[in-house]
Amino acid sequence: MRNNVRFDKQIQFIIEIDRLKRVVRQSLLMDRTRKENSAEHSWHLAVMAIVLGEYANENNIDYQRVLQMLLVHDLVEIDAGDTYCYDKEKCQTQTERETEAAERIFNLLPSNQARMFHDLWNEFEAQTSAESRFADALDRLQPVLHNYTTRGKIWQVNGIKSSQVLEKMEPIKTASPFLWKYAVQLIEDAVTKGFLSK
Amino acid sequence: MRNNVRFDKQIQFIIEIDRLKRVVRQSLLMDRTRKENSAEHSWHLAVMAIVLGEYANENNIDYQRVLQMLLVHDLVEIDAGDTYCYDKEKCQTQTERETEAAERIFNLLPSNQARMFHDLWNEFEAQTSAESRFADALDRLQPVLHNYTTRGKIWQVNGIKSSQVLEKMEPIKTASPFLWKYAVQLIEDAVTKGFLSK
Repeated sequence: MRNNVRFDKQIQFIIEIDRLKRVVRQSLLMDRTRKENSAEHSWHLAVMAIVLGEYANENNIDYQRVLQMLLVHDLVEIDAGDTYCYDKEKCQTQTERETEAAERIFNLLPSNQARMFHDLWNEFEAQTSAESRFADALDRLQPVLHNYTTRGKIWQVNGIKSSQVLEKMEPIKTASPFLWKYAVQLIEDAVTKGFLSK
Repeated sequence: MRNNVRFDKQIQFIIEIDRLKRVVRQSLLMDRTRKENSAEHSWHLAVMAIVLGEYANENNIDYQRVLQMLLVHDLVEIDAGDTYCYDKEKCQTQTERETEAAERIFNLLPSNQARMFHDLWNEFEAQTSAESRFADALDRLQPVLHNYTTRGKIWQVNGIKSSQVLEKMEPIKTASPFLWKYAVQLIEDAVTKGFLSK
């Protein structure tokens, strides 16, 4: 709105984050037609949180915050790009790149909202709350489901082994023993079916 | 999980909804590189709800339900496709097509969740709650912002006039007089700048 600094900042932020739709991840869509982008990935995780919320291990989870966290957790990739979780070299600089990105992107917002988005992102990164651990569990599980349904194509292209995937699933155990068991089963099935090397 | 019917249904639903990423809308991404899909559109609206929530006109809005509604409101498009809001012919069959789609897609879920998703979608469609009116206002505003930032390309291709866009914005007035004024201003600016015919 003309002469409304607060609203103008909010609209500039909304325009800026459109760019997340152009950040390409490693996961293939389940129909294998193309790779997934980080905006639609965030949407998928948020719907998963609604459907799978009952498997969270911890009590009194604030599901609104889980949704908010999942919706904003990848915004830093607008500047920092998606970091493939098995790319050791890129992972070394990930925190630095993403912290810088958070600084620029969240500060497009009015200060109280910049703080709120920073807090949500920091909470997700720090994994110190039940909400962040459950959100993170879904973020770890979803790519395995994508890999499984696409017969492991991206695992194979990148020479990923089952031990590496299993290691990535470890933190799910705290957030949801049930979903962790499922992830282990998926990985074992993927090995049996030849989608993933042992 | 093996022999867990409830969880198996939930996973089948999560796999099925991956298809929303392939439903193409009329809106161009703001960098004009391609059209937007309905999954990333739903994500964008949900983040908008977090940022613009303070402009909702009605009190005691349950923002968790606004987010849930925005995340699920387009799922019916997996079967029914996206219906361009100015396509009169397609709009005539929209309700029928989408009701059938809701029936199939939501019923992939365990019955209590099928009911919950149905309820969220029905609430959004019926526009009888403050939450649904605010969610709908964002769903109307976002494409105008996309059209404005892409210099009205899609409006021009489809021969859309400002009176048609203004008419589509009308319902925003109840949900948020502030956002409605902004929408009117955007449309007037778009006409002045030659993005949209008078």
